[in-house]
Amino acid sequence: MTKLSTQYLEEAIEDSRPFAANGSVNAALPTFDDTMKELLGVTIITPDFKIYRAGDYNQYVPMQSTSKIIGLMLALEDFGKERVFQTVGMEPMGDFFNSISTLEAPGSDKPFNPMINAGAISIASLIKGQNVENRFDRYLTFLRDITENDELQMDETVYKSEIANGARNRSLAYFMQSTGTIVTDVEEALDLYFRMNSVMMCAEDLARVGLFLARGGIDPDGNTLIPAHHLRTVKAIMLTSGMYNASGHYAVEVGFPCKSGVSGTIIGSVPGVMGIGVVAPAIDDKGNSTAGGALIKKLSKDLNLNMFGIENTR
Amino acid sequence: MTKLSTQYLEEAIEDSRPFAANGSVNAALPTFDDTMKELLGVTIITPDFKIYRAGDYNQYVPMQSTSKIIGLMLALEDFGKERVFQTVGMEPMGDFFNSISTLEAPGSDKPFNPMINAGAISIASLIKGQNVENRFDRYLTFLRDITENDELQMDETVYKSEIANGARNRSLAYFMQSTGTIVTDVEEALDLYFRMNSVMMCAEDLARVGLFLARGGIDPDGNTLIPAHHLRTVKAIMLTSGMYNASGHYAVEVGFPCKSGVSGTIIGSVPGVMGIGVVAPAIDDKGNSTAGGALIKKLSKDLNLNMFGIENTR
Amino acid sequence: MTKLSTQYLEEAIEDSRPFAANGSVNAALPTFDDTMKELLGVTIITPDFKIYRAGDYNQYVPMQSTSKIIGLMLALEDFGKERVFQTVGMEPMGDFFNSISTLEAPGSDKPFNPMINAGAISIASLIKGQNVENRFDRYLTFLRDITENDELQMDETVYKSEIANGARNRSLAYFMQSTGTIVTDVEEALDLYFRMNSVMMCAEDLARVGLFLARGGIDPDGNTLIPAHHLRTVKAIMLTSGMYNASGHYAVEVGFPCKSGVSGTIIGSVPGVMGIGVVAPAIDDKGNSTAGGALIKKLSKDLNLNMFGIENTR
Amino acid sequence: MTKLSTQYLEEAIEDSRPFAANGSVNAALPTFDDTMKELLGVTIITPDFKIYRAGDYNQYVPMQSTSKIIGLMLALEDFGKERVFQTVGMEPMGDFFNSISTLEAPGSDKPFNPMINAGAISIASLIKGQNVENRFDRYLTFLRDITENDELQMDETVYKSEIANGARNRSLAYFMQSTGTIVTDVEEALDLYFRMNSVMMCAEDLARVGLFLARGGIDPDGNTLIPAHHLRTVKAIMLTSGMYNASGHYAVEVGFPCKSGVSGTIIGSVPGVMGIGVVAPAIDDKGNSTAGGALIKKLSKDLNLNMFGIENTR
Repeated sequence: MTKLSTQYLEEAIEDSRPFAANGSVNAALPTFDDTMKELLGVTIITPDFKIYRAGDYNQYVPMQSTSKIIGLMLALEDFGKERVFQTVGMEPMGDFFNSISTLEAPGSDKPFNPMINAGAISIASLIKGQNVENRFDRYLTFLRDITENDELQMDETVYKSEIANGARNRSLAYFMQSTGTIVTDVEEALDLYFRMNSVMMCAEDLARVGLFLARGGIDPDGNTLIPAHHLRTVKAIMLTSGMYNASGHYAVEVGFPCKSGVSGTIIGSVPGVMGIGVVAPAIDDKGNSTAGGALIKKLSKDLNLNMFGIENTR
Repeated sequence: MTKLSTQYLEEAIEDSRPFAANGSVNAALPTFDDTMKELLGVTIITPDFKIYRAGDYNQYVPMQSTSKIIGLMLALEDFGKERVFQTVGMEPMGDFFNSISTLEAPGSDKPFNPMINAGAISIASLIKGQNVENRFDRYLTFLRDITENDELQMDETVYKSEIANGARNRSLAYFMQSTGTIVTDVEEALDLYFRMNSVMMCAEDLARVGLFLARGGIDPDGNTLIPAHHLRTVKAIMLTSGMYNASGHYAVEVGFPCKSGVSGTIIGSVPGVMGIGVVAPAIDDKGNSTAGGALIKKLSKDLNLNMFGIENTR
Repeated sequence: MTKLSTQYLEEAIEDSRPFAANGSVNAALPTFDDTMKELLGVTIITPDFKIYRAGDYNQYVPMQSTSKIIGLMLALEDFGKERVFQTVGMEPMGDFFNSISTLEAPGSDKPFNPMINAGAISIASLIKGQNVENRFDRYLTFLRDITENDELQMDETVYKSEIANGARNRSLAYFMQSTGTIVTDVEEALDLYFRMNSVMMCAEDLARVGLFLARGGIDPDGNTLIPAHHLRTVKAIMLTSGMYNASGHYAVEVGFPCKSGVSGTIIGSVPGVMGIGVVAPAIDDKGNSTAGGALIKKLSKDLNLNMFGIENTR
Repeated sequence: MTKLSTQYLEEAIEDSRPFAANGSVNAALPTFDDTMKELLGVTIITPDFKIYRAGDYNQYVPMQSTSKIIGLMLALEDFGKERVFQTVGMEPMGDFFNSISTLEAPGSDKPFNPMINAGAISIASLIKGQNVENRFDRYLTFLRDITENDELQMDETVYKSEIANGARNRSLAYFMQSTGTIVTDVEEALDLYFRMNSVMMCAEDLARVGLFLARGGIDPDGNTLIPAHHLRTVKAIMLTSGMYNASGHYAVEVGFPCKSGVSGTIIGSVPGVMGIGVVAPAIDDKGNSTAGGALIKKLSKDLNLNMFGIENTR
């Protein structure tokens, strides 16, 4: 078995970078263009806080859908599992039937899971606070605590772009209002959701989220920020639903919890073993980073991280 | 942490048995009636072949949908991963949209995964052999090898019942013929599928299938029957899709690969740790054993088996 | 064959009124309650302007979905057939798959037809004017011209209720913005749509709309307000799609163009023969007036109005 | 207004023939190939039995889906309206959601209408007779009576081709068996359906079916074969649903009941005015004859046949 080292990681990066050619940069995001196509950065942190970095690990991008797992953690902390899953389901689905049709499906009184947009918006509607600024502050504080990065903040241009391109999400949110899934102010839930997606992060920030999950909710100072059982829930849902319509593919080919964003972000979390953060903007037609996906598949294989294997790293 | 013992298992059984009241026995199966409602049997086998039994562990029932993982293993062995997943997908779905609608969904040129009926029938159409008897013989031999039980056989009454009640599966199969997913004889694929579901098994037989997966494809004599990487694939698909429309729920609440059948069967497999077999005929409206489901949730918690936890049994 | 007379109409009313018991009054509408359940008013006007009235013909109610045919006429006048049907289809559908799912259906780049809410909102987005007040003025002027009733106006309480209960329509509208079906201001299109539904009308007003269609777009003074070919289009779409999910039933049982609203309104139009207006607030689960529906079925039969018959009134 | 004459019809044919270029010949039908692309034949018969013919009016082709209206008439005669519409609905739908998905739609306990394949197969399952030969004899006798053509018969090659290519229809039929919509032998219903589609007809035969409907069920000798009210039902359903996914388009552009088949057949029926038969094999992607469709649109306009017009031919 390969041993994790910075040198290994640098080689893995070079092996994976060519897969960028199979994807394209999401031009809907401000400042994103083809010059970013070959970017690939990775950071891995182990439970003893050893850090391995390679490639464009300093590249900051909007966190996009990786925000969904942060929102879910915060809602679980605020309300507990029972209440949260009255608002959103936990069954995998992808967007095969497009998320709005699934909201109308017979017997579906709520979004299928917190990893699809409808589910994440309903989760955002739960997050406590006096107003949207206050609610976002709580999100940001939580995220800074997890990542130990007090500099994290929202990018105004990205936020405005989210609003401007938000018609589909607005449609989902009003649909959920019409069915009673969202009972708070719809525009405020959307506003919060757009802000959450607009926080800028680099590979190390993402890796620290993965590590937080891998360590079971204990922050670097040894404080339990979130009970471990809530994080088991988050990791299970990441494995079944975290990679859009390719979640099943990644469950098979990678075999540990991951969450991706259309900015080319991936958070990976191997329970008890490591947190992984990847930034590589070229994405495939399902929304997953192509070079980033190739890299985590390689890491899983080389470092024996697949949870369904008999003997993994542990 | 609780230690696994026969005494513990007997107590766990009694704790779980009352959940039978929340389910009902599948009267469509021959000889199944309300007198079976309270039955609950379990067997657990560890990689060193220690066996723990409790309750109605001698009760034989048709294996029903637990056959889907056997069929998948055999197809992977016969054709390899690439070919098999040209015929069937690996994305989770459940039957939320009923399996026949999903076959018509835009862009779906094949069943979503091998755990839904359409996927399992397409897998059955792949299994090699001169004729249906020969193909079923291969299935049965493989199953006997895995379980070390040469007595395993199909029940004729169950098989005839499967045929008589097979209209929906026949509809699925002809639909797949019409789209080119099934290219072999449809009636023969259905016949094989009905036979596969009709093999009678008890909790120990089911546990041995779980153990075979947990040990990575090595039979009791140390021979590799199926490469370990194929079994990682099977286990990942069980975790995302093995428990019908409650697969996500079981991923969260149990956290290791399981597959259920409407006869009240459950196969559980904790990689490197144990195989679990359960028989408890009262099922819920999703098709999963109620007492059986309660039992594996309890086992996961008490024995620390959840793969998404920081420290599991390993 | 029965001859149309006021006496006949009064008898027909009494025969039909008991069908109110099969329906219920739409409590979502302001001032609507069970005391209105037995109301049944009808007015019939022939091309030579003979008027027949019976029952509660003076009862004013919000026109609700009968506005859809007025909006369609105005859009056809403003833009012509080709442009209008680039924005909305002309295929019957009902809401069997709920209107938002149909917007996502493969190949559906626009709402199925102008009689479903999504289609009517997209039509409203087309109607010309500087602002929403001006656009609504044009609608109201057109409606007053057709009905020769200068008193027609919007009810403020109904309008506010439409806004307050508009989440589903808002969801539809934003969905259409996200797909490019609506290219003008969404909130303005919705505002106009809500106003259109809130105009108060009685049976005679509704009958005059039916007569306008039946006379091919010629107003009482002999002026052509809308070309006859546009009205043929409107009548054909009413016949295939005007009665919600029971449009096919009414095509068979009534056999001439009708449009209903959930306030219990029905506009009937027998080309060249008569316009019919009905108000009867008790509606069935599809949204059609029960007593009103019974009445137009009786009229069709007694007065030989079914267009699919060999010899109708003409 | 243009007067109907053979000369007019010959000119109309030549105007319409170029539209064949927009379609293609259905190569799935035996003997159908590109040499048939330009064929266009029409026959019109008025209630006084004046016959007008033009173009390839002698060309025989399989009647295909035009059989659906014959089957519906026979079932109405055998069982009456109430019983027939317990088995099949009367709401328009097309195949927008593909016919098998619509069978699974919430609340749809039966096919939407008799013009989609599922509906026609369920209708075939109703037709009385000791066995399939006997049932088909009744169908053929009825068809010969209507058309006054004792030579009509099934083509064996077409019938065999229907069986060989029948997987989708078989899937639909078994689906309906699984839901209890079809309670008789599925294979026999399919066999009858395949035979029904395989009867060879020319434009005059088709025109006589249209005339039979237009005359309200009275055969040339003045006998009432089918009550007029049953034929009103058939004509209404043809108007809303007879032209596949373009039924709404034809309701608007033609405005009288039509039924098409993928062999390029069209039956038109203007109540009280005429029957029209068209054969023109090049079909569009919805299944309707392109040149044939152009021709009936032209006939409707030139001869003032649109039922939604103020003054039609009557």
